[in-house]
This record gives sequence, structure tokens and C-alpha cells, in this order.
Amino acid sequence: MNPPATIALLTDFGVSDWYVAEMKGVLLAHAPGAALVDITHAIPPGDVARGAFVLARAHAAFAEGTVFVAVVDPGVGTARHPLAVHAFGQFFVGPDNGLLEAAYADPEASARRIADAKLLAGASATFHGRDVFAPAGAKIAQGGETAWRKLGPTVEVPVRLDDPWRTTATTDGLVTRVAHVDRFGNAITALGALELEAWLDSRDPAGVFLRIHGALGERTTEIRGLARTYGDAPGGGAIALLGSAGLIEIAVPGGHAGLELGLAPGDIVEIHYQEIP
Amino acid sequence: MNPPATIALLTDFGVSDWYVAEMKGVLLAHAPGAALVDITHAIPPGDVARGAFVLARAHAAFAEGTVFVAVVDPGVGTARHPLAVHAFGQFFVGPDNGLLEAAYADPEASARRIADAKLLAGASATFHGRDVFAPAGAKIAQGGETAWRKLGPTVEVPVRLDDPWRTTATTDGLVTRVAHVDRFGNAITALGALELEAWLDSRDPAGVFLRIHGALGERTTEIRGLARTYGDAPGGGAIALLGSAGLIEIAVPGGHAGLELGLAPGDIVEIHYQEIP
Amino acid sequence: MNPPATIALLTDFGVSDWYVAEMKGVLLAHAPGAALVDITHAIPPGDVARGAFVLARAHAAFAEGTVFVAVVDPGVGTARHPLAVHAFGQFFVGPDNGLLEAAYADPEASARRIADAKLLAGASATFHGRDVFAPAGAKIAQGGETAWRKLGPTVEVPVRLDDPWRTTATTDGLVTRVAHVDRFGNAITALGALELEAWLDSRDPAGVFLRIHGALGERTTEIRGLARTYGDAPGGGAIALLGSAGLIEIAVPGGHAGLELGLAPGDIVEIHYQEIP
Repeated sequence: MNPPATIALLTDFGVSDWYVAEMKGVLLAHAPGAALVDITHAIPPGDVARGAFVLARAHAAFAEGTVFVAVVDPGVGTARHPLAVHAFGQFFVGPDNGLLEAAYADPEASARRIADAKLLAGASATFHGRDVFAPAGAKIAQGGETAWRKLGPTVEVPVRLDDPWRTTATTDGLVTRVAHVDRFGNAITALGALELEAWLDSRDPAGVFLRIHGALGERTTEIRGLARTYGDAPGGGAIALLGSAGLIEIAVPGGHAGLELGLAPGDIVEIHYQEIP
Repeated sequence: MNPPATIALLTDFGVSDWYVAEMKGVLLAHAPGAALVDITHAIPPGDVARGAFVLARAHAAFAEGTVFVAVVDPGVGTARHPLAVHAFGQFFVGPDNGLLEAAYADPEASARRIADAKLLAGASATFHGRDVFAPAGAKIAQGGETAWRKLGPTVEVPVRLDDPWRTTATTDGLVTRVAHVDRFGNAITALGALELEAWLDSRDPAGVFLRIHGALGERTTEIRGLARTYGDAPGGGAIALLGSAGLIEIAVPGGHAGLELGLAPGDIVEIHYQEIP
Repeated sequence: MNPPATIALLTDFGVSDWYVAEMKGVLLAHAPGAALVDITHAIPPGDVARGAFVLARAHAAFAEGTVFVAVVDPGVGTARHPLAVHAFGQFFVGPDNGLLEAAYADPEASARRIADAKLLAGASATFHGRDVFAPAGAKIAQGGETAWRKLGPTVEVPVRLDDPWRTTATTDGLVTRVAHVDRFGNAITALGALELEAWLDSRDPAGVFLRIHGALGERTTEIRGLARTYGDAPGGGAIALLGSAGLIEIAVPGGHAGLELGLAPGDIVEIHYQEIP
């Protein structure tokens, strides 16, 4: 017997209403024994880009075969398609509005439109999370790739997010953005470890120099070098380091970088290089 | 082997303390393998009517055999009875204070008083969620209807909620109330689809006319016709539609009807009919 | 076949980011079928003492064999050891910073340092919850005591919390502190039922007299006698009672003792005895 499938949920539903519970009721009714995991339900209402960012950070820690059911769906009931994407050996179920962006980082990602007539006929116009995505996710959890294939036809060109925070190269460095401020106040940038390494091209990381423009309060912060961990703050100030998400973060150990440096998603971060004296 | 039972929890305990965890520890100790689902723990402390409303919305999405353990229990340790109700093929465990109102919508609902001497003897005076309702719920999850029967004698007249928001008919229409404002700001009324249909009596729903009196800010909003989904806002204003709970909702797509229209639970909603020109 | 192990999580990660989900992904990948329970993720960032207090209250409701994975870890990536403690027939996994204090209440508690080279070699410097504690917890969930022994060598002197709120005896009574204010506003003191009983030495509990110094607003509240449950408020004012955690609590039934009496953790509570007239 196979171990029970894991179904991980990400929504903008919050946890004060009954919407997440209805999805879970449907999931367990159709896939008894499945292990349900909440990624988060605190995505700001309708914020597809935020949901996509969080899903992209979370999915790699889960086993192959995991089914992600993600619902941030301001267009529910309109013409946008319901999708099920197979990528990284996992499955991503949700609206075709860019929320499943994480899946397309796999060059072999394959998207299908959920076209199961029985599912769609009975669906409400306002809650596809419960009426379409949960039953579709349960089918995949029960039947794996075969069930996924049966959901509907291949979608060649799913909707992609136009990532506003992509890192770009300039004449004297890199420009990236703050992509997320987490509960600890750490400002996580869009700059990945591999991009930074490629740009450093075997130069010493101690020469990395960051200039961060905090839009809240119009403050500029400068940081020299990369720390290894949060315990490494020289003098208790702001540090930059490679965070657990594989992205460069700005932190104030023991403090809250977001509040203390006035940082919010979208803020510009310039990366330069200064020779070490 | 049967699939593991689902036990769904609803409380006013919040998620910052350890009270929900204690209930889950007891549930899993007595019913290993059960699937635990949180409906919500964000019911305002002691708000039995709010808890009853949310439980009534959530339960139908769960399979037969599901055990709901609900605890909003300001009278814990006093004379109020602990109950286990069998209704809709499901089980509802909680205090006899109206919280389990959802179950009584089934005309064949049958309530039993939890009278298991062993359970009650060891119970604390302040936390029946952990000491009475969780072990009773676990017994039902393990033993189904037979275990439920053994919990105690039938209760003929359980405490009922005096629903303050029942829809009433007037000479020229219906009067209902806002029953809940959800995370998206949608104001969910107490008016069900069937009640509205009966009143319309085959007239065109496009003639439905709502007048909503927002107590916050003393504003009145008027809405003509029913939209099909949140994407249907004519000009971006307020719409009325049949929501996923089977109740008429007031929404401001892309906005927050509760805040923008000054709506809160209890606000009066008048429904009239206007011939379509 | 044994029932699946329960793994209970306590962190300061909140539920808006993806950190808890990453831990759960790793746990289920390594221990498929395990039942995951959230104790809380709302411990204030870095507040080890608060985390230790909540874990101490929660663990006893769980079955033997339960694995607690607790992460409040401001020193992640520094020299502090990762630990796995066997106590009360349960397992406690987390940083060696006092967070696991609950385990040491068992005189036979035995701590091991997680020294598994493979685990540690691949760990990030900033997220041992995902990279060290979750896989170690999963190994114990799968292999029990034998797996725990294999994690690493015994630690003779783990870091202990210097409990700042220990109850002390004075010439005419006891002095304790408010240790926690819960969601209902109940102020839970550090005074346990056994300590109070020992001090009363068969005197009538009705003679207990509490004087509480609320630091917020500099108010002093006096309470005579112990109530049995929250329904027992004489005149609707503040009461003291033995709460479900086995500790003396101050409550304002129907109200919020923390806000109404100006109470916060650390506030001094004096206990005296007054003969009953």
C-alpha cells in the first residue's frame, strides 16, 4: 500500500470563515486518508503575485507526488480556466491566473485544463476552491498522474506572471527588489544565490555592497559583505545574508528590518562591488 | 478497514494558547489515525451564535460519519449539559447552549447527553473541551453510532438558539439581516436561495431590489438585480449575489463591502421587487 | 501495525510565511503517515521563555511516543546544539536554549545532541527547523527510542531556563507572578495547585486572599477565596480559580482580566491567608 498522498493548501481565505474547512471536507470525502497541510491562508485577498511567491518558496520541501491546491482567485466564475499542472514530480491545482508560476520553473512542466464535465456542471459561480479545485486535487491524490491526465486537455500557453521584481544587471552592478518581508521582519529580495554567484564570478563575497532604498520613511541603508547567519551582526545593525529560501535577505538580528529600515515589497536594492582594502 | 474518521474542530480558543493542542492530543490519544480538521478557532470568545452560524455553513461539505467537536462554552462547569447529536449522518459534540443548532436543521436529529461517569468524574471545572468533548468525540470517531448511543440518555428538548436574524415577510417584500461579514468583506445575509425563490414565485430575479442599512456610518445602499459572480460588477459598485453558502451576499468586487458600505452583523436588509422597464 | 506517530509543532514562525509548511513537507517526506499537530506558531519571535511555557502546558495531553518539534531559535547557526530529549515517554526536539524545559520536569529525562553528520552537513545556517529538527523528529517518529539513541551522544548538562517567575514563600504568604495572559484574558500565574495545597496545609481555601499588582495602569486588585469555575463570579468581578493547566488563574468572567485589571506577564501576585469570620 502506498503511503497516503499529501495535499498542501494555499489560499487567501483567512482562518476565521469556513471556506478552508469546506475545501478540507471535500478533500477528505474524496481522498480519505490524505494528509492535509496548510501552507498559508493569509495571502492578502486577491494578491495573486504574493500567493505565487509563497507557493514557489514552499513546494520544494514536499515529497514527489504532493498535490498543491492553491486558490487566490479574484476571477472565479469568469472565463479564466481551472488548471492542474504536473511539474517537479508534483501537482499544482488552481486558477490559470499566474498563481501556479512556481510550476513553470520546471522546463518539463505540463498544464492541463480541468474540463471534467461532472465537476464543472455542479460548481457554484463563486467558490471553485470547494467545487472544482478540491475535488480535482483529491482525484490526483487518489490516482496520481493517470488521474491528472484524465482531468482535461493540455494547455499550451498558461497565463504567466509578469514578475515585476526580476533582478537586472546594470553597468556597475545588479538591481533587485524586496520581494517579501517575513514575520521576523527579514526583507527577502528577488536575488538568488546562483545569480549572485554568477555575477561575483569568483570575486570574494566580502566585497558585496548593498544599497537599499526603503520607501517607507525614504531611508537608505548600506550594508557591506554577507553574513553567514543571524547571529553574525557586527554591532547589532543590518546585515545581508543568503537566507533559507536561497535568496539574499536583509535582516536586523534581534530586530525587525522591515520596520527599522522602512522596507516593503517592491523596494529597490542595488548591489555593487567594492574591493576589500 | 474503514478509512480513518474525520474529526473537525470549532472553538473560540484562538491559536496562540495551548488549548486546541490539548484537545488534539486527547483526540489522537483516544482515536489514533483520525484526521483532524480545524474549522476555525477564531470565534469571538463566548459568541455562541457566531459559532453556531459558522458550524452550520461548514458541516455539509464533510462526509457522513464526520464528528464535529465544537466548543464555545461560557457556561463550562455550570449546569449546562454536554451533548452529542446525531444528524445528517454526522455527529455534533459540544455544550447544550445552542452552538450545535446546525444539527437540528435535520428533522431526524437525535441528541444525547454525555453522561459517561468515568469521563465526567475526571473532568476539570474549566475545560470540558479537553476533558469531556474531546474524549467523547474520539469515542464516536472510533465506534460510530454504537459508541454515540452509549454516551448517555436521549435529550428531548435541547437548548435552541433564538435566531435574531430570521428573514420575515412584510406587505411589500422581505426583511432579513446581515449575518456575517467574511474576510473578503462580503456581507452574507440570512436570506437563503430557497426563501428568495419562493418569494419571487417565478418573477424575474432581475427585478430584485435591495436596500441595506449600514449601521456603521448610517449609510443606505441600494442594489438592483442579482449578479452571478464577483466578476460581474457593473461600474465597480456593490452587487448582490447568491453566495457559495446558499445565502444572498452583498459584495464590492475588488473592495470590502463591510468597510465600504458600513455593514456589520445585524444590519437590516430590505428586499423589494421592481418591475423591469 | 502501530498507529501512526504524532508529531506536534511549536514555533515562532507565524502562519503567514512558508516556514512551517517547509517543516511539514520535510516531516511527511521522511515520516509518511505521521499525524501533524500545530501547538502554536504564534510565540513572539525569539521569546524562548514563552515557548517553553506553552510547551510545558501542552505536552501532557498527548500520548506516549509523541514527538514534539519546537523551534524558537534566535541562535540558529551559532554554537548552540540541536537536542532531542526523551522524557515522560515522549520526545522533545529543538535547540539547546531552554525551550525544551518542560522535558526536564521528568527526573529521568535524557538529552542527546543531534550529531548526525549527514543531517548537519546539508543544513542551512539559518533554518534548522527545516534542515535539522524536522528530519530528526521524523526519524524518531519512524524509529522511536532506537532512532533517538542513534541521533548522537548524551548531553549531561543541557541549557536550563532560569525561571524568573518561580513562586517564593515570604513570612506571611507566597509571592508568585503572572506567567501568561490567554485569549480570554485570563491571567495564569506560576502558582501550581500542589504548591498552594502544601502552603494551605489543610486550612480552608476560602481563606486564600490574593493581591495582584497590575503593572499596566498601576492598579491593585484584591480577591478573596477561590472560585470553582468561570460561572462563579460574585457580582461579576474578578475571581481566582484553579485553571485547567493546574495553575492558579485570575479571571473576569465575561470580561478580560488582562485588560480590565491591567495584567501582563511578570506582574506580582501576593497570596495571604485571612481567617474566615
